[in-house]
Amino acid sequence: MSHNKKFDSFSEKEDSVPIGSLNILSAKYESLDYEVVENYVYREEERKKGYPFVVKKNFVRWIIFFWIGVITATVDIDKCNQSDCLWRPYLLLLAYNIIPVLIGSTLVAFVEPVALGSGIPQVKCYLNGIKIPRLVRIKTLFIKVIGVITTVVGGMCGGKEGPMIHAGAVIAAGISQGKSTTFHKDFGVLNYFREDHEKRDFVSGGAAAGVAAAFGSPVGGVLFSLEEGASFWNQGLTWRIFFASMISTFTLNLVLSAYHGHPGELTYWGLLNFGKFSNIALSYQIFELPIFIFMGIIGGLTGALFCHLNYKLTVFRMRHLVDRWKKVLEAVLVCCFTATVGILLMLWQNDCKPLGLDPTKNPVQLNCNDGEYNSMASLWLQVPEATVRSFFHDPTESLNATTLVYFAISFYLLTTWTYGLSVSAGLFIPCLATGAAWGRLIGLGVKCVFPNVDVGKYALVGAASQLGGAVRMTISLTVILIEATGDITFGLPLMICLLTAKWIGDYFTESIYDIHIQLSGIPLMAWDPPPLSSNIYASEVMSYPVIAFRSKESVGKIVDTLKKYTYNGFPVVDDVFTSDSEGGNNRLNGRLRGLILRSQLIVLLQNKVFNEVPSAWDNVSLTTFRKDYPRYSNIDNINVLDSERQYTVDLLRFMNPSPYVVQDMASLPRIFRLFRAMGLRHIVVVNDSNEVTGVVTRKDLTRYRVWRHRGAIGVEELKVSAKL
Amino acid sequence: MSHNKKFDSFSEKEDSVPIGSLNILSAKYESLDYEVVENYVYREEERKKGYPFVVKKNFVRWIIFFWIGVITATVDIDKCNQSDCLWRPYLLLLAYNIIPVLIGSTLVAFVEPVALGSGIPQVKCYLNGIKIPRLVRIKTLFIKVIGVITTVVGGMCGGKEGPMIHAGAVIAAGISQGKSTTFHKDFGVLNYFREDHEKRDFVSGGAAAGVAAAFGSPVGGVLFSLEEGASFWNQGLTWRIFFASMISTFTLNLVLSAYHGHPGELTYWGLLNFGKFSNIALSYQIFELPIFIFMGIIGGLTGALFCHLNYKLTVFRMRHLVDRWKKVLEAVLVCCFTATVGILLMLWQNDCKPLGLDPTKNPVQLNCNDGEYNSMASLWLQVPEATVRSFFHDPTESLNATTLVYFAISFYLLTTWTYGLSVSAGLFIPCLATGAAWGRLIGLGVKCVFPNVDVGKYALVGAASQLGGAVRMTISLTVILIEATGDITFGLPLMICLLTAKWIGDYFTESIYDIHIQLSGIPLMAWDPPPLSSNIYASEVMSYPVIAFRSKESVGKIVDTLKKYTYNGFPVVDDVFTSDSEGGNNRLNGRLRGLILRSQLIVLLQNKVFNEVPSAWDNVSLTTFRKDYPRYSNIDNINVLDSERQYTVDLLRFMNPSPYVVQDMASLPRIFRLFRAMGLRHIVVVNDSNEVTGVVTRKDLTRYRVWRHRGAIGVEELKVSAKL
Repeated sequence: MSHNKKFDSFSEKEDSVPIGSLNILSAKYESLDYEVVENYVYREEERKKGYPFVVKKNFVRWIIFFWIGVITATVDIDKCNQSDCLWRPYLLLLAYNIIPVLIGSTLVAFVEPVALGSGIPQVKCYLNGIKIPRLVRIKTLFIKVIGVITTVVGGMCGGKEGPMIHAGAVIAAGISQGKSTTFHKDFGVLNYFREDHEKRDFVSGGAAAGVAAAFGSPVGGVLFSLEEGASFWNQGLTWRIFFASMISTFTLNLVLSAYHGHPGELTYWGLLNFGKFSNIALSYQIFELPIFIFMGIIGGLTGALFCHLNYKLTVFRMRHLVDRWKKVLEAVLVCCFTATVGILLMLWQNDCKPLGLDPTKNPVQLNCNDGEYNSMASLWLQVPEATVRSFFHDPTESLNATTLVYFAISFYLLTTWTYGLSVSAGLFIPCLATGAAWGRLIGLGVKCVFPNVDVGKYALVGAASQLGGAVRMTISLTVILIEATGDITFGLPLMICLLTAKWIGDYFTESIYDIHIQLSGIPLMAWDPPPLSSNIYASEVMSYPVIAFRSKESVGKIVDTLKKYTYNGFPVVDDVFTSDSEGGNNRLNGRLRGLILRSQLIVLLQNKVFNEVPSAWDNVSLTTFRKDYPRYSNIDNINVLDSERQYTVDLLRFMNPSPYVVQDMASLPRIFRLFRAMGLRHIVVVNDSNEVTGVVTRKDLTRYRVWRHRGAIGVEELKVSAKL
Repeated sequence: MSHNKKFDSFSEKEDSVPIGSLNILSAKYESLDYEVVENYVYREEERKKGYPFVVKKNFVRWIIFFWIGVITATVDIDKCNQSDCLWRPYLLLLAYNIIPVLIGSTLVAFVEPVALGSGIPQVKCYLNGIKIPRLVRIKTLFIKVIGVITTVVGGMCGGKEGPMIHAGAVIAAGISQGKSTTFHKDFGVLNYFREDHEKRDFVSGGAAAGVAAAFGSPVGGVLFSLEEGASFWNQGLTWRIFFASMISTFTLNLVLSAYHGHPGELTYWGLLNFGKFSNIALSYQIFELPIFIFMGIIGGLTGALFCHLNYKLTVFRMRHLVDRWKKVLEAVLVCCFTATVGILLMLWQNDCKPLGLDPTKNPVQLNCNDGEYNSMASLWLQVPEATVRSFFHDPTESLNATTLVYFAISFYLLTTWTYGLSVSAGLFIPCLATGAAWGRLIGLGVKCVFPNVDVGKYALVGAASQLGGAVRMTISLTVILIEATGDITFGLPLMICLLTAKWIGDYFTESIYDIHIQLSGIPLMAWDPPPLSSNIYASEVMSYPVIAFRSKESVGKIVDTLKKYTYNGFPVVDDVFTSDSEGGNNRLNGRLRGLILRSQLIVLLQNKVFNEVPSAWDNVSLTTFRKDYPRYSNIDNINVLDSERQYTVDLLRFMNPSPYVVQDMASLPRIFRLFRAMGLRHIVVVNDSNEVTGVVTRKDLTRYRVWRHRGAIGVEELKVSAKL
């Protein structure tokens, strides 16, 4: 299976970087296996257990989704950013900002790099079928929570909504597995869920619950999980995800209502609440639709520019900011710069307004006369969520056009610089704030012509466009925004501008998440096979020669093979030797009998399930295989006595007797669809005598990518350095 | 491939009926083939063509039709309000109702039986992969539109929302194919969409657009399509569906706003609009949640009873109402009965209210004093949509508890009797009206204890429960109701009661749609493989022996085989003869080379693409194969000269060289998942020498069903009479 093919047409990209070196995602990862493994042991156990077990398992699934919802919602990281960020002397402000950022970025850089950023790209990869080590550990959650708090307190351009989604995923993984690696605690329960495909389902529920809690958007949460993650739509799973989202929303609502002194009223929706628009504010006329489309275009363009700038910046970081202390230094630098820009803008832009207009709780007088307040300062010193609300709901006169211009430009650039820093922070709120600023500006312009329009409505459309242009979600984002504003009638304009922003943005770049995923070299599978690839055949795509085992294989050979090769699955073939170019005697090309996983072999060796040790057979059950999930021992840690090397293992009993196979004449799109729909990790290629000729892995498929950007179209092979 | 297996354990159901004889669905159907056929010709053409441009059209034409129904339905029999002249309105009402119903049911019974009912079960089958003849023809749409108008005008308990979904599907199929069989018109465009899987995608968009138009619910439309139809979630497809829904909503909004005299205002959402609830009306407290759950239980129970009664009734109809005139007679009978019940209730239940309370436009004085109106009559004589709105929004005092009781019971029973009649009518509105009536009743009870609650809110929950208990949709229904009420904050209670109603209902029966699909014997594939079936193997499930062709086959043999067998796909195998029990010399068991479809063979024979006629080869392209889609010639209509019978056809060039295969050791769940995810119609079973041993079809899989109802659990084989 070693990859000794020639890359005939390998075109490197302009900014070629050592792919796979981006530290957020580059930790050694491997594909998850969503395929249900069915071997003799599995079938026996299922038959024995009977229907009540199925019912129980199903029931337990619902219970778990319930708790995913409850616990995700209670990760209330909202408390720390309510602090009264009043005007402080500049140095005090700097100190006040630097200290938390220093703590946060140090933790992220030195303790848990996977807690960097919003976590959405990583969760997306996980749902797509790629295991990112430590992504769903409790420890990561702790670092993330501290990281987000420090970022927000440090006044940086980052949100806490993306991290909520990551938090939901961690919680889901934790609950559903009944064990925690961080705490070295195995509760010994729920071990029937210790499989990749079960865990993935729970994680999608967690991500949905996270969205539901962050935005008060249960339906949006479900759609987010589906849009970003699920490949195979399953009705039952969708209901359970929906259930978790619902419970999460409900719990948060309950907690927030109690927190605000109205227990039992259930009126506080979501951490991020855009506030209630009046019905009049959100009514619209046909002539406004072209304006919304125009705003979508602006959002698409600025979003694409954002993606491009951030891409360049990320490449720079990957090349030059490899040391951890440099990362921390950059974070602190950005923090100082953010504070400085803020202060300068407040001093420079004397947008003084009479106090009555001020909707914020803490008006800042800075450089203004008595009885007035500095509106730029009030924008800058609130939590970003409140700034977004200001743009949406403040009276028309409360913000000057120039204030909006300065705010939009500075926030846009700061957001670009901040995303990808070694801190835990999301992208949603900064994008929304930037977009709301320029949206409101456009609203002011429209208001000159049509005095009846509401500027807040334009701020909302601008916010949606800007975010849509960067992250390119459409249906889930529309629903999230509809649910966050609490008004259904404005759905259509939101959809229109989001679709426009996506189309425009997609013309220039991929989404910011996809860019980061791609830079890290993770073989994320696209939604559709590359076009015009139907004349690429399995025999061209596959890796070969294949390392296979015979159905009754000696222990020594298994140990040696596992040590030599890192593959995760090995075909089991008939006992027919064929010679190949490399001449190794464990290279077989016989007829396919089944497929056995590395983890299964490890468990078999560990438990000494050898034909010559009959007693060991009694202890083998499904639980044996699931106990160590998802971290099986390394082959080097397994003790095999020299005397045991001649023993044999009966692989027939444990292998999957009917793995998915394709003929060597199968086309790339066909293999791609099969991988995508069934969540495969590898597929065996056979010739028309059913002899194994190769194996296609996820990596082999993601080598083929299409570049549709700026007119250049074609299929090209990419070099993906990752081992699968 | 003939089905000569023994059915060892065949347990017939209590009410066994000649399965497949239900006339709505029993017309000869076959499976659609969603698999992309990739043969040499396809690959060549794809390479040459480059990116086809996907064209989307909006869905406008039919919307106006329904307003005819709405306007006509505002019956005004206000003239005669003294009891002595009641016979006149009664007879008038009868005549007024019978005539349209007679027309509608005659059309449905004699001209196009597939226009019966709401069309949702049929669309669901289509999306699941079953071709129902004439379902998506323009003619069917015409009959359906007339049928719906006549049903509504005839005052029957039927809605027009389900038919809208069917209408959307027809329009989508029509536009996307660029031809109409009804009009014998082929525009010669869009022939690259003439494949089952492309057409299916368009039809799901059409169904979504239908929901969007019917309820003003674009997101709900997308979710409906996904929940009921799509098996493989594809991001690109979802966006296009979303786009269609958006355009549909927008167009309707535009038309309705203009119709109501506010062109350009875009404030009229959906044909069915529940009206705007005030924020206070929809706020809720924790103590109300158990009440909502309780209402969900009631909805689940009454919904299950509805399904059961309608099941019995449908079985009765299948047995005894086979003649078409009997069906028309039943429709007229139900129509008369409905009118009579209405009149009797109005007279009997003197729920007279002072005129000021009346929110309807045409208060009916019937049996009341001057200055009063009969509230039962106003409920009964409005269009059902307005009745639902009355329950939601009328002041508490405007409807007595007894009025609600009588209305709920009579409407429930009438709906039960009406669904499945030979008329075009949906289920949504009658269910909503019934549920709103008893929901409001519960609201009145709650109001005695907590005077501040709004009875309209309980009516809404009741309506949701009743509908959810019958149709068992959860996520899409929640979103549809949220979008139709235009208020997001009430989502949680709706979700809670819908989930409860679904769980309760599912315990007793399947959904009303699934019951009708099952009775008609259509092999609809469930979402998940039956539990505990992992020890059922492909070799037990498959049909055998297999009728196969050699890669170079004689014309005579192909013609004879196509005449003798009705199968839709034939494996192409190596030239190896084996003898089998039936001894036919066209039964081959050689190694699998590929799969060729019946339709391809027909086209090859029609165009005389024989090795001995080299000139014919130049005319063969993808267009040749797509031209006749979806109705290919019958083999009997194809002229093959005797001299041509010795000619040969090179199947290698046209077959699919890499069909999906499974080993004979593959388990039922594995095959099931493959079918479900990839939209397969048949899969070839091979042994470990890659020799064809059988074929598994959709029918083979749907024979295994689980009966979980009322404690009886197990996997059993069902007899499905349909030919695939």
